[in-house]
Amino acid sequence: MDTQQIVLASRPTGTPTLDNFRLENKVLPGLQDGEVLLRGMYYSVDPYMRGRMNDAESYVPPFQINQSITGTVIGKVMMSKSTDFEAGDIVSGNLPWQVQTIVPAKGLSKIDESNAPISYHLDVLGMTGLTAYFGLMAIGKPKAGETLVVSGAAGAVGLVVGQIAKIYGCHVVGIAGSDEKVKLLKEKYGFDDAINYKTATDIKAAVAKACPKGVDIYFDNVGGEISDAAISNINFHARIPLCGQISLYNSTDAPVGPRLQPMLLTRSVLMQGFIVSNFKDQFPEGIKQLSKWLTEGKLKFEQTTVHGFDQLPTAFISLFKGANIGKMIVEAAVS
Amino acid sequence: MDTQQIVLASRPTGTPTLDNFRLENKVLPGLQDGEVLLRGMYYSVDPYMRGRMNDAESYVPPFQINQSITGTVIGKVMMSKSTDFEAGDIVSGNLPWQVQTIVPAKGLSKIDESNAPISYHLDVLGMTGLTAYFGLMAIGKPKAGETLVVSGAAGAVGLVVGQIAKIYGCHVVGIAGSDEKVKLLKEKYGFDDAINYKTATDIKAAVAKACPKGVDIYFDNVGGEISDAAISNINFHARIPLCGQISLYNSTDAPVGPRLQPMLLTRSVLMQGFIVSNFKDQFPEGIKQLSKWLTEGKLKFEQTTVHGFDQLPTAFISLFKGANIGKMIVEAAVS
Repeated sequence: MDTQQIVLASRPTGTPTLDNFRLENKVLPGLQDGEVLLRGMYYSVDPYMRGRMNDAESYVPPFQINQSITGTVIGKVMMSKSTDFEAGDIVSGNLPWQVQTIVPAKGLSKIDESNAPISYHLDVLGMTGLTAYFGLMAIGKPKAGETLVVSGAAGAVGLVVGQIAKIYGCHVVGIAGSDEKVKLLKEKYGFDDAINYKTATDIKAAVAKACPKGVDIYFDNVGGEISDAAISNINFHARIPLCGQISLYNSTDAPVGPRLQPMLLTRSVLMQGFIVSNFKDQFPEGIKQLSKWLTEGKLKFEQTTVHGFDQLPTAFISLFKGANIGKMIVEAAVS
Repeated sequence: MDTQQIVLASRPTGTPTLDNFRLENKVLPGLQDGEVLLRGMYYSVDPYMRGRMNDAESYVPPFQINQSITGTVIGKVMMSKSTDFEAGDIVSGNLPWQVQTIVPAKGLSKIDESNAPISYHLDVLGMTGLTAYFGLMAIGKPKAGETLVVSGAAGAVGLVVGQIAKIYGCHVVGIAGSDEKVKLLKEKYGFDDAINYKTATDIKAAVAKACPKGVDIYFDNVGGEISDAAISNINFHARIPLCGQISLYNSTDAPVGPRLQPMLLTRSVLMQGFIVSNFKDQFPEGIKQLSKWLTEGKLKFEQTTVHGFDQLPTAFISLFKGANIGKMIVEAAVS
């Protein structure tokens, strides 16, 4: 049986281009015992995947040239030779960018369609929501009356972080890349203030103005100069969860900037990197809490949906141009 | 009554020089109720004091021009109008660099001369020992079998950190600035290995060689390129207590270096600045534990003693040349 896949054609230098990807046919083998045949419905594109395109050691191994890109995918079971799933089940897993895929059933999770639309499980009820939840709760430790600044505020993680901090009674300031995003953060998502870093003449001063009591939590999704500006306003005993560094992922040179240690030292600041899988034992607890807030209407979110499997590379590349508001998802029609 | 004091004559640019200090006469006022007259015995000189010589906000206010430098001092009570102390008591406190001083009794701590020599209370049983203890225990969290690297290893804090990590079963590697210090660390203090950063051609490679299983704890006393080299060998889930940044204290430009956040992120590393007073509620517990190790012979230490009150500026400046092994103390003769 034939299907299509998107492989890594070459490793990017700097920002990825369409040339780095190739859509090609793939022949699927026969279905074996314990396996299922899936058809992809929703594909997640995430900034961290840029790191896997380099031939460098990281917390996940690099993608291989001429091999399929992999990421979080939600699919429908078309055929099953596993006792765990039957045809029609909706499942998610770390899966190749293929229209149809044959994979072992173990490693897949069944999605409960009753509590929320399917695509939410790539977003607020999936890795995105859990990343925001655990990074903020376990490292940021928000307290009522404190000030939180989040960069990449209109992105998938940033929106959730800001809203949870509001639930905990923080003064919440977002940093984002357009006036449209700033407006959305303030008007729809209840942020106390928001800064357009592309038009601010002095981001440090803008953060200082938006945070009259300084910054107690800086949730860092972007790194680079935006983070320098936020951190220059940091308070004694502040916490800095390091969640993403999207501004640096396409750097061709080793990024250089002000040394932060003297400031972290004199202000007794904690900075901690994390990946969501550090908290995997607590995922059920996180999903339960996020579902509760969603049901109560305390958590809204946004998806930017691109249609068509073959648009995956385009959607991925657009992440680095700030094209998305909320979670960027590619939806493939399911027959 | 006349005495002598050392004042800040001018703020240094870069490394302090003797011109930045001035020895001068001072007239002491009469002793009031609740006050004591002290004569200084031992004066602590510490790298952090360099920060107070700048006119910049920090966790302690800056020294003022034409005012006495202040620091930790151990003195003998010569006269007392306080019910808390009597003549002959030995006390410590944050006190001016004066030969004799009149101060309120509150804020002074009486030193128990029975359990250790007096000068130990500026060192392993004082702020130095407590800094090492709490930075390592509360942030570094050493576990048997892990690898700890400490910079400024032959300094006052570094020596204690390395020895406590050995007590906890760590593989301990020190970074120091001379072959003499390297020898001392390995032969007297039981460090598993030590690196002379001044002669190593590639510090990163030297750390990698000394730490075949990577670095789980990097206790940072120095900052700058030495820290870059240590951190480039950092393990997943490592901890980096930021205790000092002596290599940067005399910088005249804002220090610039490689951005560390991408590495802290992908390796889920915690970096945390601290000052010892964050732990002041736990000081009694820390002193008890340090005293126990000292009595058991598990903790050795070193003092570099300079004689003469007027040598305080010279001793302080020499800290930045790595002149000290262990704690640098200035001893004034007490009549």
